[in-house]
Amino acid sequence: MQNYKVIFHIDEMNKWKLLLANVNNMLVDLKDQPVKIEVLVNSEAVKFFIQKELNENDYSNIQNLMNNNVLFCLCNNSLLSNHIELNTLIPNISIVSSGVSELMLKQHEGYAYIKP
Amino acid sequence: MQNYKVIFHIDEMNKWKLLLANVNNMLVDLKDQPVKIEVLVNSEAVKFFIQKELNENDYSNIQNLMNNNVLFCLCNNSLLSNHIELNTLIPNISIVSSGVSELMLKQHEGYAYIKP
Amino acid sequence: MQNYKVIFHIDEMNKWKLLLANVNNMLVDLKDQPVKIEVLVNSEAVKFFIQKELNENDYSNIQNLMNNNVLFCLCNNSLLSNHIELNTLIPNISIVSSGVSELMLKQHEGYAYIKP
Repeated sequence: MQNYKVIFHIDEMNKWKLLLANVNNMLVDLKDQPVKIEVLVNSEAVKFFIQKELNENDYSNIQNLMNNNVLFCLCNNSLLSNHIELNTLIPNISIVSSGVSELMLKQHEGYAYIKP
Repeated sequence: MQNYKVIFHIDEMNKWKLLLANVNNMLVDLKDQPVKIEVLVNSEAVKFFIQKELNENDYSNIQNLMNNNVLFCLCNNSLLSNHIELNTLIPNISIVSSGVSELMLKQHEGYAYIKP
Repeated sequence: MQNYKVIFHIDEMNKWKLLLANVNNMLVDLKDQPVKIEVLVNSEAVKFFIQKELNENDYSNIQNLMNNNVLFCLCNNSLLSNHIELNTLIPNISIVSSGVSELMLKQHEGYAYIKP
């Protein structure tokens, strides 16, 4: 069986609606097949995960994707440059030191790359 | 001989001019070499293929690329969410159930990914 | 040791600040490891390298990245369509006949693709 692996890249706040729809559509389309999905978030797009600014609908959407094993991974350089403290983020988010390094490493491991 | 394979990704209407120029330039550059070129269209960008809204110049450009074996492939999820009926589209377009799944599968088959 | 290779793609003038920050962050993150970094520039983004229009700060940033073996590669089709003469560009820039062909070829050689 094919070992599906994909990393989605988002670095703009105004792309979140499209990105979440894309990931949902992929999960529905591949519902009987194993797939590793990671969402790598850098630049201003990391602000989406500030708990007090995330609306209930988006939060529930994110939680649902996490329950379906979608990994959300934030770039620490971007958190620092946007002055965001870790304890202001929603729980269960992964952090990597450099978002662009993560995008390269995952592709070297065979992940497909998609930038909505 | 190298087996060239590439999938272009477009999800915004205002990127069509750039995308078509990019694909044309690649065909000219590689004119003596075999290359598989697919254009995967999702989100609002699928509206470009509604026959009565496509201008003559763009239509002739698309037809010319198809005659050079460029495959245009539309995401059915995006057609549904944009309320577009299949019989309103220009002929000879391919449809896939999920555009993002197609982008992942093609990369797993060795296609390069380009997002203009 | 992993052989890191990545090609960054830029085709919009307003993405330069983000792209240069991304490349800088990757160099810092991977500072003890060999990595091949190429920046492929096409469409209007080639205008950034016109010497008399590049401000001192950006020029010094570019020079610093070049000194760290980052390769800047411009699409000749884009130079022609933007009416830019080669002798108006800053020194030590590489030129390829087609930017999109370069993006495909490098991915076929194992380079990861990142579009900021």
